[in-house]
Formats: sequence, C-alpha cells, structure tokens
Amino acid sequence: MVDPRAYEAMGQPVTGIRDPYFLSIMAEIQAGLREVLGTKNSKTFPIPSSGSGGMEAAIGNFVREGSKFAVFTAGHFAERMATMGQRHRAQVVRCNKEWGEVFSREEASAFIEREKPDVVAFVQAETSTGAYQSGRAITAAAHEAGALVIADCVTSMGAMPVEMDSVGIDIAYSCSQKGLSCPAGLSPISISPRAWEWLERRQDEPFTWYFDLRLIAKYFEEPHVYHHTPSPPLYYAMHQGLAVIEEEGLSNRWERHKTVGQKLVTELVKLGFEPLVKKSGDRIWHLTVVLPPAHVDEAKLRDRLMNKYGIEIAGGLGKLAGKILRIGTMGPLSTEDQAAFLLDAIATAI
Amino acid sequence: MVDPRAYEAMGQPVTGIRDPYFLSIMAEIQAGLREVLGTKNSKTFPIPSSGSGGMEAAIGNFVREGSKFAVFTAGHFAERMATMGQRHRAQVVRCNKEWGEVFSREEASAFIEREKPDVVAFVQAETSTGAYQSGRAITAAAHEAGALVIADCVTSMGAMPVEMDSVGIDIAYSCSQKGLSCPAGLSPISISPRAWEWLERRQDEPFTWYFDLRLIAKYFEEPHVYHHTPSPPLYYAMHQGLAVIEEEGLSNRWERHKTVGQKLVTELVKLGFEPLVKKSGDRIWHLTVVLPPAHVDEAKLRDRLMNKYGIEIAGGLGKLAGKILRIGTMGPLSTEDQAAFLLDAIATAI
Repeated sequence: MVDPRAYEAMGQPVTGIRDPYFLSIMAEIQAGLREVLGTKNSKTFPIPSSGSGGMEAAIGNFVREGSKFAVFTAGHFAERMATMGQRHRAQVVRCNKEWGEVFSREEASAFIEREKPDVVAFVQAETSTGAYQSGRAITAAAHEAGALVIADCVTSMGAMPVEMDSVGIDIAYSCSQKGLSCPAGLSPISISPRAWEWLERRQDEPFTWYFDLRLIAKYFEEPHVYHHTPSPPLYYAMHQGLAVIEEEGLSNRWERHKTVGQKLVTELVKLGFEPLVKKSGDRIWHLTVVLPPAHVDEAKLRDRLMNKYGIEIAGGLGKLAGKILRIGTMGPLSTEDQAAFLLDAIATAI
Repeated sequence: MVDPRAYEAMGQPVTGIRDPYFLSIMAEIQAGLREVLGTKNSKTFPIPSSGSGGMEAAIGNFVREGSKFAVFTAGHFAERMATMGQRHRAQVVRCNKEWGEVFSREEASAFIEREKPDVVAFVQAETSTGAYQSGRAITAAAHEAGALVIADCVTSMGAMPVEMDSVGIDIAYSCSQKGLSCPAGLSPISISPRAWEWLERRQDEPFTWYFDLRLIAKYFEEPHVYHHTPSPPLYYAMHQGLAVIEEEGLSNRWERHKTVGQKLVTELVKLGFEPLVKKSGDRIWHLTVVLPPAHVDEAKLRDRLMNKYGIEIAGGLGKLAGKILRIGTMGPLSTEDQAAFLLDAIATAI
C-alpha cells in the first residue's frame, strides 16, 4: 500500500533536474536513505530502476568476469543473484540450503574459508520464503577472506533492521515499494568506502553503462554530471515516504512491524496454517509466509480474499508456487486493526 | 512539461501487477505505443528505466561480443551508443560527421557496404544537436547487408514521425518525458518480427538480466511471468499521455510541432540567433538548437530566462557545452502563444 502522502507528493510539478528544489529533494532523500539503511556511506542514492536493477548494479560493478562470486542461496531472489553472476561470467559458487532456511555462522565460515571468494552475496529478507537473516553470520568471515559483501535488502529496508555499517555490508540495494510504502521505480543503493575504493581501482569497465555506479555517483554530487533523466514524481514520493518514517521513528516502525507480524503468525497457526520458516527469530516481520491447512486450496483462498474483501495475497514463486501464501503487512497496513480484518477474512474464507 | 492529465492519472491507486485493471492499462499502453511508433510489432512495451535503459536493452540484446556494430555518430547520444557497444565488446565502427549534420544515402551505403556490420545504429532525433533524420537513407543498405537496424527515437516519438515499419527500423526505443509529455521513468521499446526471430535464435545469454528482452516480453504476454515490479503511477501517466495524442490525432500533433518550431526558428534568426542544423528539413521541430548572437553569453541568458520568466532552456552537451541553446517546445508547450511568450522573453533578455 502506497502511503497517502506519497500519492499527494506525486502531484507536485516536475522540475528540471538541476533545479535547486529538485537538488534539495535529492539531498534529503540521500540523507533519509542513509538512516533507513543504517549507514554513513556518502555513496548512497536511488537508481532509476526496480529493485532488480539495484541487484544488477551491485553485481555488474563488483563481480568481474572470472572472479569468484559466492552466493548463499535459499530462495528465489538469491538464485537470481547467482544467475546474474553467471551472466557476468563470474565463477559462481553456491552455499545451498532448503528454501526458507537461514545460514549459521559455522556454515558461512566453512563455505567462505573453503571457497575464498572475491565477492559474497546474501539476501537479508528473502521475499520468496519469508526468511530474514541480518548477515552478521556471514560478514566477518567474508571480510577475513578479503571479500566484498553484497546484501539484497529489497524487502528489509524501512520495515526491519538493515544496519549496513554495524553488520558489515559493503553494498546494499533495495526498492521503493516495500518498506518505504512508495510506488515502485527507484532502487536505493549504498556502497561502503572500502567497496568504493575497490571500484575506483577497477581497471576494466563494467558491461553495463546504465548501471555504472561511477557514472551514476557523479550525477548525485556537484556538479551533478548528467547521466540519466530521473523521474521527479518518484523522487517526491520517496521524499515523503522517508519523512513518514522519520516522523514515526525507525525503531518504532520496526517494533510495529514486529508486533503485528508476530500476532498474525500466532493467529494463523490457530487457524491451521504453518509458517514456512520454523524459528520465529528467522522470520520477516512484515511478510508472513505460511503453508495453508491441508483442506485449503491456496489459489482459491487468494481469489476469494481478493473478490470478496479486496485483499491481495501473493502465492509462491519458483519451486514454492502453488504451495504457500505470502502475506505482506507493510507500512500503513501494519496495524492491529488491519491484521484483525485480515484474520477475520481468512477465517471466513477457509 | 508534463500534461495535466498525466499528473492527475498518477493519483489513481496502485494495484497489484496482475490486477485486471492494471493489465488492461498495460495492453492499452502497448497499443498506443504501436501507434506513435508507427508499427504493428507485437513486441512493443515500456521497460522500467529512463531512455538510456532502452538504449542498453537494444544494444545488450542485439549486439553480441565480437560482432560488428556500425554507428552513425554526429552527436552526444550516438556517441553513447558507440560507448555501450564497446562495453559489450563488439567491434564498433563509426561513420562520423560534424555534430548537427545528417547522413546522406550515398554516405550510408558506402559505409555499410565497406564495413558489412551485423548491427547498424543511428539516432533519429539527436537531442544534443537538434538534427533529425528519419533513417530512410540508412535502412535499405543495412538490410541489404543483412544487418539489424537500431534507432534511438528518444526525442522523436510522439512529436515527430518515427514510422518504424515504413522506414525499416528493427529496434526502436524511446522515453516517456519528451514527445509523450509524461514524467521520466519508462522507456518504450519495439522489436520487429525479423529482429525477434534473430533474438530467439541467439544461443548465448546477454550480460544483462534486467534488460533481457526475452524475459521482459514474457511479462507483457499471458500468463505475465514476473520479471520486474512495474511502477503503476508511471503506467497511469503514460496511458493518459497516449490518450491525449490519440484525441489530438498523431499527424495533427506532428503538424503543430512543425508549425511552432518553424516559427520559432524564423523569429530567432531575426534576433540574431543561428540554427546549428543548416537545412530546415533536417531539424527537429520541437527542439530548436541555436548559437546565440556573438554578444550574448548563453549561460547568462539561460539564467535570466529561468530567474525572470521561469523558462528553462538547456545548454550544450559534450563538445557543444557553452556554445548553444537547446529550446524544447514539446506537447502542451508547443503552441503559438507559448512561442510568442518565449520569443518576447528572449528578445528582452538579450
């Protein structure tokens, strides 16, 4: 659900991209993104794409042809990272687990020590399974091996802790339509000084020009060298989405998502649903992934909720298609009232 | 200038990407884009990026490593195409002319016959110089040599003839913020059946996953396989932008841009400005590029127009920086009244 203030903001006039008003919005967005990502990185900005464009930017700039790219894969979006690494002709190695599981410190260390990768990647909040892992189990071993760490924060940012600097993430990217409650179309990305130094030293050019972070960064810094034409309405919306978070307080917002998410799981279990992620501490708070009771057809249930209550619930992706329900309660939807309405509807519909 | 109806459209509620309403908007956008591009290509859809993302999609899918990529270069955006071809490790050959010039049939044929390229690229309306060329001088020789033709239609579409099918363009891409008078953020692209067959036969995968047209196309066709999350407000805006064009009539719109553009040039010449593009038939109608009179400082003139009248005029890009003025009169700005207001302001400001 898009925040009402984000809708309203999109009605503001489109300005030229060097208009002082637009530049002030840009700077405030960058500051707000640093807050929600938990970082002091100066290289923090939105790129003109959906979240998968952020993924391509991270991999296209930091994963060179022939380099070793180690991906922790236990879901659809981690698989996509591995696919992109292959397209960039890296030597891709995977640490595979069942979809929905997370990686322990021991598993991560053993894998990284064995593989000695140049770049390590993981998904902080795996939208396809509902599993969350901060990355603390991965980053220390990765840095010890001299590797850069890429984290997919598409679903975590703005709703759960990313804490890029304290976790030790070098490159984080996200989207605008989940934790920020804005329309899709912008992908925030942030790069640590360590990763940026590596990029500055990189001799060969990335295949991608559109996502070349060295070119894009110049657009966000004086004298704002033209790279792409940004979409002002999406900037205005993101500006408001970040302001809403600042006003609520980031940790209050996390707490709200956590409380509502945990309540939802408890009540769904009473109705016979089973969480895909077993350990409650490994679950995304604002995206509840459950297997339906044996007698319930997930597609019919989703249809009934949509047609009767206007509630949209997602089905499974990839190998979980047809098996699970993915229930998002993000931003303005993450309230006790909304959860009660949803639970009533589900209880009736099954 | 964004059309008022496009602003209004962005206030509509964001729906899920498989919502029947969203799918109907998507289909109508595709039909409208075929109209403004002058094509019957079924593979016609907006991709989630600025216009340069369309360029990267065209080159990333059709220019393979080691293939010969022939670019007609006489401006900044043609140079960008050559740069992207190099990044994709093609063998890039250029037919260079002075910025602002266009290519004759003889020049194009001689170049193509000599180079025998796999892919030929040109810019239909070169935003950096104000030069327009339909591409008719290029396509026949290219097809005779068995090459695919990519045309940059970023500035032409919606304001001047693209006429993809009758000109013989295989891959055309554009943007949302120029001829369509919508906010930036979507790049329409269209691919001929001939080019699509080539792409279907392509064995190796493009480097780019985000701009992989085979994956993106599946999203726009039943059963709408998920590739990226689109930005509904940008779709709603484009839907209205295309409706405005349909209501006016495409050829009426062309005529309006032509009349206003020609009047602007005539009056600017009287004030001592000199068009960069010498032949009037080679000029973009809705983007007037002029050298200022010798005693006028272009940067100061632009500042004065912005501060005193709220009129934003662009300066030069690349090697024309500091030398020219680029005056856009597109969509709702392309009227006799607006031109008169602009000319009065310029006459006073110089």
